[in-house]
Amino acid sequence: MSLLKLASFPPATVSPGASVLEAVEVMAEHAVGAVAVVEHGILHGIFTERDVMLRVVLRQLSPKDTRVREVMTAPVETITDDTSEEDALVHMVERHVRHLPIVNTDGQLTAMLSIRNLLEHRVDELARELHSLDQYLSNDGPGG
Amino acid sequence: MSLLKLASFPPATVSPGASVLEAVEVMAEHAVGAVAVVEHGILHGIFTERDVMLRVVLRQLSPKDTRVREVMTAPVETITDDTSEEDALVHMVERHVRHLPIVNTDGQLTAMLSIRNLLEHRVDELARELHSLDQYLSNDGPGG
Repeated sequence: MSLLKLASFPPATVSPGASVLEAVEVMAEHAVGAVAVVEHGILHGIFTERDVMLRVVLRQLSPKDTRVREVMTAPVETITDDTSEEDALVHMVERHVRHLPIVNTDGQLTAMLSIRNLLEHRVDELARELHSLDQYLSNDGPGG
Repeated sequence: MSLLKLASFPPATVSPGASVLEAVEVMAEHAVGAVAVVEHGILHGIFTERDVMLRVVLRQLSPKDTRVREVMTAPVETITDDTSEEDALVHMVERHVRHLPIVNTDGQLTAMLSIRNLLEHRVDELARELHSLDQYLSNDGPGG
């Protein structure tokens, strides 16, 4: 399955000049923990709730007066939509990141993949397997 | 395997009267995204980096002047150390939580389990399986 089917589309984005407070508002609105930082279609970086905590609150910076470009992570690692689910998950766990922007062959941002997207898909699969097993046991299984 | 072997021990804790800034300092020091809120050995709630973003920064509260008890999640769901890894993971994904405090039979906090703890264990297992397969292919496998 293409990762695009699991990822958040369209991805939540802000411009590098947005304030941290504006970025937090975008994350709250989309119910996500990261925004892609984009200007003129170019992906400049990523800004996450972990960055809000460690780079803004911990340093006692003002969320209103601090620009995203000052506290974002850049350059940012990206994947393409033909990356496998397994590779994406292992990459996230090993690199301690919860989000990976998906870019197309022109390097343009197309979606944002979160570790939650991958896990929810796994849990759905597990639920389907259990449901099939349940059907088997009640309809065709031994001991009727 | 007991969940206690995977979880963070001792867990990062703060008192309900600590400031949000103090809680953030504890999370930064322990490199975690959640603290258990504990007083006199009793678990009162949980406070996470998501709460920092949505309940403090978004509402424009002061991290120095806001007490953890005002913005924590309480009551908090807990598990015991005989919960299975699978159940803990499915529970986290379905309930949209990344941390579950582990309590003993007296209801006292013993450790904090994060979704990261579970995933790192899974990746370790996968790496071990690949290593075994590799050994098999180079030593005993077909085609020498």
